[in-house]
Amino acid sequence: MTLRELAAAIDAELVGEAGDAQVGGVTGLDAMAAGCIAYVSDADRLGQAEAGPALAALVPRSVTQSTKPLLRTDNPRLALAKALSLLYPAARLPAGVHPTAQVGHGVELGAGAAIGAHCVIGDGVKIGREAQLHPLVAVGAGVEIGESTVIYPNVTLYDGVRLGARVVVHAGSVIGSAGFGYVFDGATHRPLPHIGTVVVEDEVEIGANVTIDRATLGATIIGQGTKVDNLVHIAHNAIIGRNCLFAGQVGISGSVVVGDNVMLAGQAGIADHTTVGDGAIGGARAAIMQDVAAGAIVYGMPAHPRAEQLRIDAATRRLPELVRTVRELARRVAELEKKLGEGTPSEG
Amino acid sequence: MTLRELAAAIDAELVGEAGDAQVGGVTGLDAMAAGCIAYVSDADRLGQAEAGPALAALVPRSVTQSTKPLLRTDNPRLALAKALSLLYPAARLPAGVHPTAQVGHGVELGAGAAIGAHCVIGDGVKIGREAQLHPLVAVGAGVEIGESTVIYPNVTLYDGVRLGARVVVHAGSVIGSAGFGYVFDGATHRPLPHIGTVVVEDEVEIGANVTIDRATLGATIIGQGTKVDNLVHIAHNAIIGRNCLFAGQVGISGSVVVGDNVMLAGQAGIADHTTVGDGAIGGARAAIMQDVAAGAIVYGMPAHPRAEQLRIDAATRRLPELVRTVRELARRVAELEKKLGEGTPSEG
Amino acid sequence: MTLRELAAAIDAELVGEAGDAQVGGVTGLDAMAAGCIAYVSDADRLGQAEAGPALAALVPRSVTQSTKPLLRTDNPRLALAKALSLLYPAARLPAGVHPTAQVGHGVELGAGAAIGAHCVIGDGVKIGREAQLHPLVAVGAGVEIGESTVIYPNVTLYDGVRLGARVVVHAGSVIGSAGFGYVFDGATHRPLPHIGTVVVEDEVEIGANVTIDRATLGATIIGQGTKVDNLVHIAHNAIIGRNCLFAGQVGISGSVVVGDNVMLAGQAGIADHTTVGDGAIGGARAAIMQDVAAGAIVYGMPAHPRAEQLRIDAATRRLPELVRTVRELARRVAELEKKLGEGTPSEG
Repeated sequence: MTLRELAAAIDAELVGEAGDAQVGGVTGLDAMAAGCIAYVSDADRLGQAEAGPALAALVPRSVTQSTKPLLRTDNPRLALAKALSLLYPAARLPAGVHPTAQVGHGVELGAGAAIGAHCVIGDGVKIGREAQLHPLVAVGAGVEIGESTVIYPNVTLYDGVRLGARVVVHAGSVIGSAGFGYVFDGATHRPLPHIGTVVVEDEVEIGANVTIDRATLGATIIGQGTKVDNLVHIAHNAIIGRNCLFAGQVGISGSVVVGDNVMLAGQAGIADHTTVGDGAIGGARAAIMQDVAAGAIVYGMPAHPRAEQLRIDAATRRLPELVRTVRELARRVAELEKKLGEGTPSEG
Repeated sequence: MTLRELAAAIDAELVGEAGDAQVGGVTGLDAMAAGCIAYVSDADRLGQAEAGPALAALVPRSVTQSTKPLLRTDNPRLALAKALSLLYPAARLPAGVHPTAQVGHGVELGAGAAIGAHCVIGDGVKIGREAQLHPLVAVGAGVEIGESTVIYPNVTLYDGVRLGARVVVHAGSVIGSAGFGYVFDGATHRPLPHIGTVVVEDEVEIGANVTIDRATLGATIIGQGTKVDNLVHIAHNAIIGRNCLFAGQVGISGSVVVGDNVMLAGQAGIADHTTVGDGAIGGARAAIMQDVAAGAIVYGMPAHPRAEQLRIDAATRRLPELVRTVRELARRVAELEKKLGEGTPSEG
Repeated sequence: MTLRELAAAIDAELVGEAGDAQVGGVTGLDAMAAGCIAYVSDADRLGQAEAGPALAALVPRSVTQSTKPLLRTDNPRLALAKALSLLYPAARLPAGVHPTAQVGHGVELGAGAAIGAHCVIGDGVKIGREAQLHPLVAVGAGVEIGESTVIYPNVTLYDGVRLGARVVVHAGSVIGSAGFGYVFDGATHRPLPHIGTVVVEDEVEIGANVTIDRATLGATIIGQGTKVDNLVHIAHNAIIGRNCLFAGQVGISGSVVVGDNVMLAGQAGIADHTTVGDGAIGGARAAIMQDVAAGAIVYGMPAHPRAEQLRIDAATRRLPELVRTVRELARRVAELEKKLGEGTPSEG
């Protein structure tokens, strides 16, 4: 692909010569290579790109000139995503079933779908066309996997789980394990059987070593386009909306309801039976113990509206000083009381 | 099974006709189906059950009449657990060793036990009768697995680990990895070999992607009937009592001692060498840094008795206001001092 | 090995007879056995060792005499590590490729290397001599694994990941999954392809069910000798220095830079693009939201210097009392103002 073709494909404006040059790849500023595009997210670092061997620089629109050819764009990160998709197409597994895979009865396999080495596929599983199951994946009976969905190694899908199309599940994740529900019968914690399932809608991406539990009755649902980072736990009967982003190690308790476009930063948590409205944001390690309104930004433990929590944090940091101030005030008040010839009324 | 038979089996009182009707299953209120029992945990939602196609409703004792047949009980959740166990018996793997499983020397396999596809079983392993190993499980040498224990896919049991009877280990969990112990020798962190083991007693249930480390010397112990949720970490030499409940993402550090019937809510943590007494409760994300007495309820970071922490939380929330109040008081005191013709004694 | 030989090998001073006795093993004080060395980390517990059947006691230098033979040393824990390494050499897999392993094209396998049952090794993988891959490991194309590195079961190494020599990766860990990076294109969160890799340097140890994401461009790097405990998440483009210790459930966000010899206690977290200097320490559950200077000790949420945070914690605990004190002060000030015949100036 030439530089000119790449520019067109990623909606960038090409400035400078070299439009006919072949593009060899994309690099960051710390590992530039001849023939490659250098990604410059910050205009202040253009000089670094200019000093290196890169063929051209992918830059924000604010950069207008350079000693290098430029690919100017309003959204360099989006252009980067497009360029990487074009220049580094993901490797595909060969279509078909690897001879070491164990496939149950009545499995439906779409055209172009691939099942890797040592996968174990239960009875009645439906796998959409162009889906790819990497090696060592365990798929329970009756599971449905949509078209072009990709499952990485060592993933476990329990019986009856349903994944939509173009879903990605990274290695080691577990979908459909029994929810953590017990009933104390006077002697022991008796397990509450979880006969529900998990529904993962289209374009959801699930990181590595994530756990998503099946519902007691009904379904735990991950809405379309939602992205879940590594080591996140989503408990039974949670209903997660569309296009949410949950960063690493987030924990979602049972029966939580999360709206669309909700963002949770790393290690945040939501207590059970809590509702979080559309577009709300939970900051890093926010402990959401109560319902959060749509659009709210919360943070802290327990989580409060972010502006309020920042004031609390600032005041907390000065708390030892406040203690001293109050002690000094008490001394001064006592002095005043003495001067006025008496103790406090409660003592007098 | 008829409605009358089900009522008897789950210790519920049948009110209304239809005792001879066949029960098709159990549903929640959001997915009722003809012939099924609707589970009504909250009496206020009875009307919803009545408006649907359910055959009957499983209700708390407080509900006395309905347009539907009722299954009344003092503990609907316990009755639900019983009904689900009866109506939805867990699928069983076929007994025997799958031909793709790799089984070491001297392995003992009890009657009715099942070893799934692509399992790898080390030398000298003992597997009790009716135990079920789902596909892709790795079992180290000398491991003991009790009768009727169920291991889900992609679990790893390191050499010498011992699991009791009727234990459940969900997918992706790791039991017996080396504890996180190093000795700085002046140049590097030298690993302390962990030659101990992990003992998981009867009826313990372990969620998905849990990690339990082996002891340095001796054993990490998980007491009978304890239930551990997903992504929990239990470090080397921890001694956990009976019938505890640890929710998702809890972290137990090395050499912690936890009594019986202890409950830890999600993301709680216990610092190393800390002791938590019988029946204590740690709230969501409690950071237990010091010993906790039996029966105590703690919460916060660091964790304090819950009632105290709630007062702290309430006061913390009003802290910015307190800062303003103190500032205003200081102004008023200074005014009083001025009126009395002098500064503070320390200034005078 | 005789007691005398063991003493020499672990740099301990042998006190007492019995130097010719054969050493049967090492135990803690709760499970002593005849012929074994009892490990006594705390001199106060020497009596316990003396009362048991142990052959001898491994003790701190401060212990000078005993009814048992002693192995005295300045660093008993280091001596213990050496003794355990000598007396309990780790089991080795038989060299060579297990017949059930699936090995791709152009794989290079060093002398003495072992590939366990049901492993799946991609094309062009290089595995160093004496490396050991336990069963059920998935290794992507082009991965490099250094000599004497040990990979436990159910680990996934994505394409192109590079592990150095003498690295240990415990079961269930995932190295090289795509970083959590998306670009909102106005409608959906579009994945940012991660074409970088992960470089794990020599002598790194990685616990169970850890996740380490590949870089967008370039590499996520784990420096030589660093040890990472279970369920830790290290995000894309993080650069971790040498000889760090990260305890269980720590979370490292994207593009974090951590120096050498940094210690993070359990459940600590570092916000993205933050830098932590050499030798810094983050306490249990520290939420590091800002850069941390070399050598600093931080703690709290958000993390502050430890001494300051301890003052804050102490003051916070007394906060409800402070509120009462301020309320009482306000009453007394109002009383004084009344006595002086007026309200506050702002009211007057």
